[in-house]
Amino acid sequence: MQDYQSILNDIYNKLSKKEDKGTVASYIPELKHVDRNAFGIHLQVIGDKTYGAGQYAEKFSIQSISKVLTLAKAISIEGHNLWERVDVEPSGNPFNYLSLLEQENGIPRNPLINTGALVIADILVSQLENPKQDFLNFVRQLANDDSINYNEKVAKSEKETGYRNYAGANLLKSFGNLKNDVDEVLDFYFHQCSIEMTCEQLTKTLYVFANKGACMLEKVHLKKSQTKRINAIMLTCGFYDEAGEFAFEVGLPGKSGVGGGIVALLPKEFVISVWSPGLNAKGNSKLGMQALEIFTTKTNLSIF
Amino acid sequence: MQDYQSILNDIYNKLSKKEDKGTVASYIPELKHVDRNAFGIHLQVIGDKTYGAGQYAEKFSIQSISKVLTLAKAISIEGHNLWERVDVEPSGNPFNYLSLLEQENGIPRNPLINTGALVIADILVSQLENPKQDFLNFVRQLANDDSINYNEKVAKSEKETGYRNYAGANLLKSFGNLKNDVDEVLDFYFHQCSIEMTCEQLTKTLYVFANKGACMLEKVHLKKSQTKRINAIMLTCGFYDEAGEFAFEVGLPGKSGVGGGIVALLPKEFVISVWSPGLNAKGNSKLGMQALEIFTTKTNLSIF
Amino acid sequence: MQDYQSILNDIYNKLSKKEDKGTVASYIPELKHVDRNAFGIHLQVIGDKTYGAGQYAEKFSIQSISKVLTLAKAISIEGHNLWERVDVEPSGNPFNYLSLLEQENGIPRNPLINTGALVIADILVSQLENPKQDFLNFVRQLANDDSINYNEKVAKSEKETGYRNYAGANLLKSFGNLKNDVDEVLDFYFHQCSIEMTCEQLTKTLYVFANKGACMLEKVHLKKSQTKRINAIMLTCGFYDEAGEFAFEVGLPGKSGVGGGIVALLPKEFVISVWSPGLNAKGNSKLGMQALEIFTTKTNLSIF
Amino acid sequence: MQDYQSILNDIYNKLSKKEDKGTVASYIPELKHVDRNAFGIHLQVIGDKTYGAGQYAEKFSIQSISKVLTLAKAISIEGHNLWERVDVEPSGNPFNYLSLLEQENGIPRNPLINTGALVIADILVSQLENPKQDFLNFVRQLANDDSINYNEKVAKSEKETGYRNYAGANLLKSFGNLKNDVDEVLDFYFHQCSIEMTCEQLTKTLYVFANKGACMLEKVHLKKSQTKRINAIMLTCGFYDEAGEFAFEVGLPGKSGVGGGIVALLPKEFVISVWSPGLNAKGNSKLGMQALEIFTTKTNLSIF
Repeated sequence: MQDYQSILNDIYNKLSKKEDKGTVASYIPELKHVDRNAFGIHLQVIGDKTYGAGQYAEKFSIQSISKVLTLAKAISIEGHNLWERVDVEPSGNPFNYLSLLEQENGIPRNPLINTGALVIADILVSQLENPKQDFLNFVRQLANDDSINYNEKVAKSEKETGYRNYAGANLLKSFGNLKNDVDEVLDFYFHQCSIEMTCEQLTKTLYVFANKGACMLEKVHLKKSQTKRINAIMLTCGFYDEAGEFAFEVGLPGKSGVGGGIVALLPKEFVISVWSPGLNAKGNSKLGMQALEIFTTKTNLSIF
Repeated sequence: MQDYQSILNDIYNKLSKKEDKGTVASYIPELKHVDRNAFGIHLQVIGDKTYGAGQYAEKFSIQSISKVLTLAKAISIEGHNLWERVDVEPSGNPFNYLSLLEQENGIPRNPLINTGALVIADILVSQLENPKQDFLNFVRQLANDDSINYNEKVAKSEKETGYRNYAGANLLKSFGNLKNDVDEVLDFYFHQCSIEMTCEQLTKTLYVFANKGACMLEKVHLKKSQTKRINAIMLTCGFYDEAGEFAFEVGLPGKSGVGGGIVALLPKEFVISVWSPGLNAKGNSKLGMQALEIFTTKTNLSIF
Repeated sequence: MQDYQSILNDIYNKLSKKEDKGTVASYIPELKHVDRNAFGIHLQVIGDKTYGAGQYAEKFSIQSISKVLTLAKAISIEGHNLWERVDVEPSGNPFNYLSLLEQENGIPRNPLINTGALVIADILVSQLENPKQDFLNFVRQLANDDSINYNEKVAKSEKETGYRNYAGANLLKSFGNLKNDVDEVLDFYFHQCSIEMTCEQLTKTLYVFANKGACMLEKVHLKKSQTKRINAIMLTCGFYDEAGEFAFEVGLPGKSGVGGGIVALLPKEFVISVWSPGLNAKGNSKLGMQALEIFTTKTNLSIF
Repeated sequence: MQDYQSILNDIYNKLSKKEDKGTVASYIPELKHVDRNAFGIHLQVIGDKTYGAGQYAEKFSIQSISKVLTLAKAISIEGHNLWERVDVEPSGNPFNYLSLLEQENGIPRNPLINTGALVIADILVSQLENPKQDFLNFVRQLANDDSINYNEKVAKSEKETGYRNYAGANLLKSFGNLKNDVDEVLDFYFHQCSIEMTCEQLTKTLYVFANKGACMLEKVHLKKSQTKRINAIMLTCGFYDEAGEFAFEVGLPGKSGVGGGIVALLPKEFVISVWSPGLNAKGNSKLGMQALEIFTTKTNLSIF
């Protein structure tokens, strides 16, 4: 039996003292106002207790982590048809994502890069009656927590400066791989990225992927085979061009966001979330990556 | 002394009978309504007579040929500073133009590809008091013809479907290489492309580049060194990824547009315009390219 | 308790009757002589029994599967230093592997693409006293089987026609990422690829990666952390540009070869090998991929 | 009437005093022994006098300038068939030349990049009875000078270190676009590059391209249409990714070599050669480029 609380405390004590905390994302102006010294970590053992250290109850912007949630919703609606419009291969290069899209005729490499997530957003805009409200309800049910919400300021901030996402959406549209109006899809996308959660809410939300498709209070059921596939995509594509490195050093399916959050999980065993706003050169939380390396080394838990 | 009229007649007779006239551009819906059998050719000898055959007095959409005219206007205002924001190298690949832009940090390869022309449009939007009207006046002065005008229907049609240009403009903006509002620059750009001219008006408009910077009635003077450089750019970049082929087969500076127009010139000697709406696989007028090959072969005139 | 023998029999019966068996690799002339109807499958449960069906005792050319074995040997010698010369990220595109190498300054994306494996071969040529013999001994110890051998005809055949590998090795050399003579490294590489095994020998050889670093008769010990990392690389990079698809559909670390062999494993649980010489469009065994999909679906075993 | 001698003297006096002379190529070890302060310039007016300044009678390695000469010989043998194996479009990017070749299925962009020149070399190896001797004779006839020769030391030096050319030749071979043995083609190629000439010999050798296909003493006749096309290729492709810049700043067809030589010409008017071993960042002679800019500015002569 592992003493998880001690391990989380050790990680918190060691990392929160580090001088080099990485660089807070500046391309979404509204995100710059965050406390760059914040560090939180939260662990949920499947069917058992939870543990936390640091600012694990403080809200942050989940950003790209939301892509896993929109993917889950879209798969539950569309099933296998979805894969005609987006691939499941790692992209390897974050800076070239538009180039790859152009060279591959408008089919994004996977649903966890921006253009892939835009296709998923397009599907939800088509299929949901009230896209933004319905998706938010889905997330709240996963977490069993109705206090989860969009941050309108962050959504607005990204709308005003998200030129690269406008470029990506228009490029998808030029290839016929966006069915709805560009502005409508981007409005949905900027909102999904603006969702705020604490580490604790995040582990609860992702519980369903580690628990064979059943969320904590069983409000939502995903098919077991679908959660397995989403886990596979998180492992191969969850960290942009650092996906191989994360699989290599940590060995868990997971997803990061430029808000500094990372969530990872071991199927049937646990879900863990970390938050520290400073990013490394690849755009993943610097201390968050280190925290998960330490955690899997100390506990000797990984899928490999 | 060459019998130019006979040569133009021969070209017209030979080519207008051809079965395979290429494919009329369909991506701008409004352009599809053109008569695909139209064929016009017009020649202006510098300081001498003019010659024409076929529908050389019929208006067509000059589209990308306008890029030479915005470039001339921008150079006359900005001088060498302009080259900090756009390069002068051939691009080689039309389909990858956004990829190249991404890989080269937002500096377009040259001012005659779409993204390069968008940077030039951005400069004119910044520098001209009434951008659209002032630029139209410049073109009218070059041609000494106030009947030249924008086609609002064509501009509107491209605005509604020009997703790839929206993508390019937003990508430029994300690199900081577009100073004005994306929509404002695109509005200017779609208008410049919508200008309509006859072959005759087109040869007159380009007269300035073959005549060391002086237009027909000397309403406009460009610097001789600037027209030489624009000629060089036309030769190396005027035909997308068929630029080398055109230099090789025709050997004249020139520019094509998806409306099916081509204009080419031999400095100090002549300007020639052709129009036939069907395009080849590279997006250049199929019969237009052939017409110019025949013309330079028969007259034995080229810069090489 | 699963009835593994029935499952293997079912897979054999179902797949060996399939009309479309894919295309036997033709680029190594000597490989073309294989029986294209052959199909073998073999399973080794860790610390327990083995099961087989079809031609599981017939030898075939392991080709790229050897890259996992050279990597294991090189890591056991070089440790972490190795990662300065080769990355651990998926490549995404098999056809562009030289392009990627050129664009990334001579550092191959991962050790399981050809140029990455050439760097690993270069390390072994530097570090082993008798490279070819010493490496063969290492493989024999892993499998506890001294009958495993190189096929000189296959090695010679690839030497005569492996222009792309010559190109890759020379490109590495031009970047200074190959220390030994190009021909010497390629000779080693063509030999490692020519190793012949049966499915049974292959499962035994890979046992060490599923058994925390200890091979069957404990002749060889790898560090547990190193086998975990090699498993991670197999999952993210083991199937060229079908790696994501394999993780998605099968969910096991594994490696394929153009000889038609595939090996995959579930840590602490089992190792499984399949062989069918016909390949799919991505260069992986067509029936082999299907066999593993059926196996993991029926047994409900995967890392996710 | 221009005073050419004064202009050449001015250029020599101005440039030979410059501190920043660029960097002598180091990748061919044998080329490093050159006097980096050397500067020569030579002008031949068609059907008229010659002029020289500086070390215009000193031999240097012509390197890539030889590609124009092998192209001329190959065209004279093969005619238009040659263009099935190599394109005529500018490449834009020197560092990616292997990537472009891979992405364009083994058809080099043009005959003046390395892989294009290797295809031309392959044609000559196939068509000439004694390839090296026959080609040398052709060059000697063009120049009317039997003292022109290969430098065996330079050829050997490049053979020992030309890994990138080995990579390119093998990549061509893998696409089936090299008919002869890789080593045989490279031996020819390294020899053609090793030819030594003075500026004076170089202007004489290129005379044929400015004189409608007739060399000085009419020992060799090329078709006029073929010299026009070679001139077009020199203009669009003669300076790697600085081709557009050279057309823009100088406005003449020309070709550079890493030995520091540049030759350029104005059809029917003149041929000019410059030599200064220091290169700029693009691999073209730094002072040589400046010399030609000054020359065309002062004389006001260019094709545009």
